[in-house]
Amino acid sequence: MSRVEVEKKVLNENQILAEQLRERYRQHGILCVNLISAPGSGKTLLLEKTLQRMDKRARVAVLTGDLQTENDAQRLAKFGFPVKQIVTGGTCHLDARMVEKHLADWKLEDLDLLVVENVGNLVCPSSYDLGEDAKIVLLSTTEGEDKPLKYPSIFFKSELMVLTKIDLLPYVPFSAELAKENARRVHPQMEILELSSTTGEGLDGWMEWLQERQHKAKEKAKFVSA
Amino acid sequence: MSRVEVEKKVLNENQILAEQLRERYRQHGILCVNLISAPGSGKTLLLEKTLQRMDKRARVAVLTGDLQTENDAQRLAKFGFPVKQIVTGGTCHLDARMVEKHLADWKLEDLDLLVVENVGNLVCPSSYDLGEDAKIVLLSTTEGEDKPLKYPSIFFKSELMVLTKIDLLPYVPFSAELAKENARRVHPQMEILELSSTTGEGLDGWMEWLQERQHKAKEKAKFVSA
Repeated sequence: MSRVEVEKKVLNENQILAEQLRERYRQHGILCVNLISAPGSGKTLLLEKTLQRMDKRARVAVLTGDLQTENDAQRLAKFGFPVKQIVTGGTCHLDARMVEKHLADWKLEDLDLLVVENVGNLVCPSSYDLGEDAKIVLLSTTEGEDKPLKYPSIFFKSELMVLTKIDLLPYVPFSAELAKENARRVHPQMEILELSSTTGEGLDGWMEWLQERQHKAKEKAKFVSA
Repeated sequence: MSRVEVEKKVLNENQILAEQLRERYRQHGILCVNLISAPGSGKTLLLEKTLQRMDKRARVAVLTGDLQTENDAQRLAKFGFPVKQIVTGGTCHLDARMVEKHLADWKLEDLDLLVVENVGNLVCPSSYDLGEDAKIVLLSTTEGEDKPLKYPSIFFKSELMVLTKIDLLPYVPFSAELAKENARRVHPQMEILELSSTTGEGLDGWMEWLQERQHKAKEKAKFVSA
C-alpha cells in the first residue's frame, strides 16, 4: 500500500468513528466543540476563563490534548468539572479513537457541553474529524495577519475564529481588520469573535456563542428523538 | 503495508536524501540551518532583520516553506539575496526532497549560508531531517513557558533555542527564566539566545552565532577536502 493509500485508509477509519461519536452527541443533545490553534494562541487560558464563568452546576467536560505532560488538565481541573488529558505521545493531532477512548468512563447523559482542546498545531488537526459540531480556530494578535491565507484548510473548516490577546494590540504590529479580511477571503461565512482572556474583554460574547450553540444542539436532539 | 511501516519507509527515504544533502553542504563548506517554530513565533521577521544586517556580498540564500502563499518569499526577496518559496500544498513539514528540488537551479559553490525556514509547526518538522547542520527552534514570549515540555522532540533535537519577542515581556505573563529552565530540562546542552526582531535587542548575538557556525562549517569542509 502506498503512503497516499494508507493515509486515505486512516482518514476513512477516523471518519467512521467520528460519525459514530457525532451520532452519540446528537442523541444526548451534547454540543461538542473542537478548539484548534497554533501552540501558544491561548486555548487553555480561554478554557480556564470559560470554566471559571460557568455555573457550578453546568454539565460541561473537557478533553485536552498534548504530545506530552498533564499540565493543561491540571490547570483546568481546578474548576471542578470533569477534565481528562489525552497524551498523544508523538502524534501531532487528536483523532476520533483517542476521543472515544477517553470518553469511555464518562456518562454522556450527564453532559451538555464537551470541549475538546486539540494539540497545538494549525495543520494536521484540520484533517481529523472528531465528531464535533463545530471546529473553532484561535488566532492571536501576536501571530501574523496572513495566517488564514497560509493555513487555509483550518480556517475554511472552522465555523468560528476567535481572535485572542486583543489586550496586546497596542504593542504589536497587527491589524485585526486585515486578519479578519484574510479569514473571510478563505471562508466568507465565518463567524469572528475578538477577546482577551487576560482582561476579560469579549468573554461575554464568547459565552453567549457557546450558550446559543448549546441551545441549538438541544433542539437538534429533540428533533432526532421526535 | 501498515501505517507504521509506511511511515518508517518515508522517513528512511528522507534520511537517505538528507544525508546526501548534508554531504553536498559539507563539500562546499555551507552552513545550513533549519528554523522551526509554531506559526507566528517570528521566523520570517527574524530572517528579514538577519538579511538586512548581512553584508551585501554575503553568499546567503533562503528557502522558506508554507502550506500556501508566496508571502514570505516576497517579504524576504527585497534584500537582494536568492530566496525561494516552497509551497507544500497541505503538507505539514518540509522534507529533504522538497529542499533538493528547490536547490536544483542554485550553484552550491556560490553559497556560504543556506537558511531553511520550515512550515510553522512545532511537531511534524522535528521528524524530517533536511541535511541541516543545526535545527534552531524559536519560542516567543507570547507562548507558554511549558512549550519545551509539551513539544519535547523539537527542543531536544535543536541545538539552539531563540527566545523571540522579548520586547513584549512587560505586557505578558511570561517568565523567560522558567522557559529556559524547561528547555534545559529537555535538552541540558541547548544554547539559548534572547532577542527582539522589533527593537533589535539581541540581534548582534544572533548574527555572531551564525558567523561562528559558518566559520566551523568552513573548517569542516577544509578537513574533508584535505
